[in-house]
Amino acid sequence: MTTPKYWWEDFQPGTVLRTGSYEVTKEEILEFARRYDPQRFHVDEEAAKQTMFGGLIASGWMTGSISMRLMCDAYLLDSASLGSPGMESLKWLKPVRPGDVLTLRVTVLEARPMGSKPDVGLALSRMETLNQREEVVMQMEAWGMYRRHSPGA
Amino acid sequence: MTTPKYWWEDFQPGTVLRTGSYEVTKEEILEFARRYDPQRFHVDEEAAKQTMFGGLIASGWMTGSISMRLMCDAYLLDSASLGSPGMESLKWLKPVRPGDVLTLRVTVLEARPMGSKPDVGLALSRMETLNQREEVVMQMEAWGMYRRHSPGA
Repeated sequence: MTTPKYWWEDFQPGTVLRTGSYEVTKEEILEFARRYDPQRFHVDEEAAKQTMFGGLIASGWMTGSISMRLMCDAYLLDSASLGSPGMESLKWLKPVRPGDVLTLRVTVLEARPMGSKPDVGLALSRMETLNQREEVVMQMEAWGMYRRHSPGA
Repeated sequence: MTTPKYWWEDFQPGTVLRTGSYEVTKEEILEFARRYDPQRFHVDEEAAKQTMFGGLIASGWMTGSISMRLMCDAYLLDSASLGSPGMESLKWLKPVRPGDVLTLRVTVLEARPMGSKPDVGLALSRMETLNQREEVVMQMEAWGMYRRHSPGA
């Protein structure tokens, strides 16, 4: 493994970053939903028109997965990430539709060393997934674990 | 649309149900991760051995997506579900590895009519994703929205 560019020390409260973007296609909405979330508003274009959503929308799990990919490409793959223990909350606020272009705004809220592992630190971030109209379609508060560059410093 | 079998009234606090099962393969772990979560412990079998996980593990988003599928097949596709506004919490507690067989235990914690829409009700459920050793690998507390069978009753 190459030396990480970002360590726990780089995720301090107040840090804000913006990722690249990802275009959502009808084909990907259908493919994902057929496999993991075959509710009619995700898999059936005609039936979706009769629902409260008024048309096909992406599975919330797909929106989360795309958000994960945006994080990976923006900084996570270059970091000393050790995965995530979980989330404090997740809100699906607006439908994601074919043609939407998603991007992510990450704001670090809290950071602390891990009590049980002195070479690891935790960071809590607000992750806002935005569409091309800058509307927040999904919001998470999620923990990340990272190795520390200078444990005990 | 056919008449739903389950309505909001069927998700009352104390209701417990168990879904079918889903076998996780190495191929699916790799395929999902290459697309959505290409961290080395999800996409590189050899590199994963050198991490704290000791081998390839599934993306947490894949475990969530599989849990969604188990819900769909067990009851959601036969219900008056209107989607989910979000989750109160999500914890990834144990790694999911190739060959694991996952199932879901759903416990309804809370149910209330929706203030703004009298024909809709909300239910908060604890969703525990278990492996073949009955270990909880993921736990969510998630809200579901359902149409009410007898609004105002």
